[in-house]
Amino acid sequence: MSVKIGLLGFGTVASGIPFLLKENAEKIQQAAQDEIEIAKVLVRDDAEKARLEAAGHNYHFVTNVDEILADNEIQIVVELMGRIEPAKTFISRALEAGKHVVTANKDLLAVHGSELRSLAEKHGVALYYEAAVAGGIPILRTLSNSFVSDKVTRILGVLNGTSNFMMTKMVDEGWTYEEALKTAQELGYAESDPTNDVEGIDAAYKAVILSQFGFGMTIDFDHVEHKGISGISPEDVAVAQELGYVIKLVGDIRETASGLSAEVSPTFLPKNHPLASVNGVMNAVFVESIGIGQSMYYGPGAGQKPTAASVTADIIRIVRRLKDKTIGKAFNEFSRPLQLAAPADVRSEYYFSIVAPDKNGTLLQLAEIFNAEEISFKQILQQASDGTQARLVVVTHSMNKTQLENVTAKLAEATDFTLQNTFKVLGE
Amino acid sequence: MSVKIGLLGFGTVASGIPFLLKENAEKIQQAAQDEIEIAKVLVRDDAEKARLEAAGHNYHFVTNVDEILADNEIQIVVELMGRIEPAKTFISRALEAGKHVVTANKDLLAVHGSELRSLAEKHGVALYYEAAVAGGIPILRTLSNSFVSDKVTRILGVLNGTSNFMMTKMVDEGWTYEEALKTAQELGYAESDPTNDVEGIDAAYKAVILSQFGFGMTIDFDHVEHKGISGISPEDVAVAQELGYVIKLVGDIRETASGLSAEVSPTFLPKNHPLASVNGVMNAVFVESIGIGQSMYYGPGAGQKPTAASVTADIIRIVRRLKDKTIGKAFNEFSRPLQLAAPADVRSEYYFSIVAPDKNGTLLQLAEIFNAEEISFKQILQQASDGTQARLVVVTHSMNKTQLENVTAKLAEATDFTLQNTFKVLGE
Repeated sequence: MSVKIGLLGFGTVASGIPFLLKENAEKIQQAAQDEIEIAKVLVRDDAEKARLEAAGHNYHFVTNVDEILADNEIQIVVELMGRIEPAKTFISRALEAGKHVVTANKDLLAVHGSELRSLAEKHGVALYYEAAVAGGIPILRTLSNSFVSDKVTRILGVLNGTSNFMMTKMVDEGWTYEEALKTAQELGYAESDPTNDVEGIDAAYKAVILSQFGFGMTIDFDHVEHKGISGISPEDVAVAQELGYVIKLVGDIRETASGLSAEVSPTFLPKNHPLASVNGVMNAVFVESIGIGQSMYYGPGAGQKPTAASVTADIIRIVRRLKDKTIGKAFNEFSRPLQLAAPADVRSEYYFSIVAPDKNGTLLQLAEIFNAEEISFKQILQQASDGTQARLVVVTHSMNKTQLENVTAKLAEATDFTLQNTFKVLGE
Repeated sequence: MSVKIGLLGFGTVASGIPFLLKENAEKIQQAAQDEIEIAKVLVRDDAEKARLEAAGHNYHFVTNVDEILADNEIQIVVELMGRIEPAKTFISRALEAGKHVVTANKDLLAVHGSELRSLAEKHGVALYYEAAVAGGIPILRTLSNSFVSDKVTRILGVLNGTSNFMMTKMVDEGWTYEEALKTAQELGYAESDPTNDVEGIDAAYKAVILSQFGFGMTIDFDHVEHKGISGISPEDVAVAQELGYVIKLVGDIRETASGLSAEVSPTFLPKNHPLASVNGVMNAVFVESIGIGQSMYYGPGAGQKPTAASVTADIIRIVRRLKDKTIGKAFNEFSRPLQLAAPADVRSEYYFSIVAPDKNGTLLQLAEIFNAEEISFKQILQQASDGTQARLVVVTHSMNKTQLENVTAKLAEATDFTLQNTFKVLGE
């Protein structure tokens, strides 16, 4: 007897699932120890159904989710519609109906994950979502299984393919932000409203999920500071290169003495850091831990087949657990009470780009402002002046978030200085 | 009640296990759902026992393995002695006694793995060995779990830290092979007899194990061609750089139309290939598959804590499976009959370094030899002559192993040419 699954949505990712089930039938049978059958597929309306049937897709298409939720033969529901609603309602109802759920919906999991996980636990069913973070990279299962003996201290990730494609073009080809965005949109990497990708929101969703798997803490999306790439200028890119860095949008989750800090921000990475060579739409998650030390997981962050491979691996895992009668096991069992880091414990080096009058004493005045906050300079560059104004670039030694806030306020007060940009710098 | 384990050997790796068990006690308890207790530790003799006790190690040390094997309370035996014997006998006896076994012994698994796995299956016990390939990188479990839905087509790996450290020095610093080896030995990375590391034997052991997990095929160690780094000259390194490549010792396992090919050899990697920036003692496994596409797993290939983290993850997995009553599951369930690739199906670009008389017509004569085997040139460089002899460097277009064999024989016959080196070139 086969295990029947119901798909919610039949877009590009969903159609990759039957491809993999067929191509790898023998291997999947060995691992799942049962047949997997796509029993029903929910589509939007009769028009979509007709279109898919005309395209040769030979599934039992339905337009009402109840036909799947009320079907007692369907044991697994695979949600691939995206966005919050109606996905949230459908997943909740599936879990309540005792069905196991696989989804790739990071927005939903980042915002309503706790609620859905509780619901799954209450009904003794599985809720798996490997594809929700870095599509094709099996990072969640790896954190859950292989880091079980280890203590993760920091996770750094290039988590958004769209912005990484743009940053790669800005760094390697000297494109402006606007040029990079236009091309990303033309290639279909960026949506017409690119906010989620370029402002670090998508990466922040992933940071929420990584925090759970890596640190056992469920952090609120609102506690993940996020800053995007739209403010990065060609001058920032050029000076980063001059100083031996590559700028990328990096998710950074660390455990400090006081608790967890998670943020997404443009970050200066030393050129020899493994994340610095993660280019184009590729993603990577770099993990620091007390056992393994440094390790990195690299692969496509999105795309039909990579995402379908992750989703299908989750399906196979559920089918096998049904066979083994161990279906109750949560996707992530690591759980601790949330404690947020005190700003004074979150330390980094920082880059400041400042415009100032080109006159004697300016540098001294700037040094006094930083010195008053006990921030010391690691590198300082005075760039070509236009006769009246010059651009000063400072890379500091390690400082904390309180110092960052204070010095930023002081620079805003000082009439001579205009702070153009502040970015985190990863020390070597 | 706790699960009791017996350690065979108490070297650096073994002593990392209690460190991790203690540091991560709460997380491990959540995952294992039972306490883990190191009940007995086998050491060589009373002198080692006295030395370890004097150093403050507070374990029940024994000098006779029977005290562990005959102890019915010990459910898991962890072998960390290395080499073939007595490890093979001890592991076999442990499996026969119904004990689960964790080991990091790649030599043993590459050569006697089938026999040991059969024994484990026969007695319904677990035999786990995540640490056997690329120490800290959780690649075996990832291939087993996350690639379950995917079809791997090729695995390329920087699998030996010692030789990669040496190659990094030879490439980045221009050191000779001899200088790099001397430093590797001084730093403790290479043994006094470095054969296994520098001649690709250690990497070939790992290729055997990766073949099982990635392709489901148990290939004999003798079927893994291996060629080491000792023949690489500073001229090879320099010309590789000039042509845009980095030379590394790479394990290469691929499935061709006729079957599996596995080899270890110095390989020209394009500078922008993710493996090209894997430097020093770090390892990485690059996987090509029809679902995920390209992904890479990077981390330390050896070392106390990384290896101990992998071994401890295996122990925890066994303890949990005991709880879940799913202990019979093999570490790798993917299994197909072995089929070896026909040489004509194993294709690559190749680099040839040839010394020839500096006279008219030499290049034409060389072109004729290659042309007769239907091998075409992609790049050709004639390097500075000493007045009588010149060095010719050829990079070919894709050719197969039969062609390689034939052209190598023809070059040996031709009195004018001395073939200095042939290396595989990874196309872009």
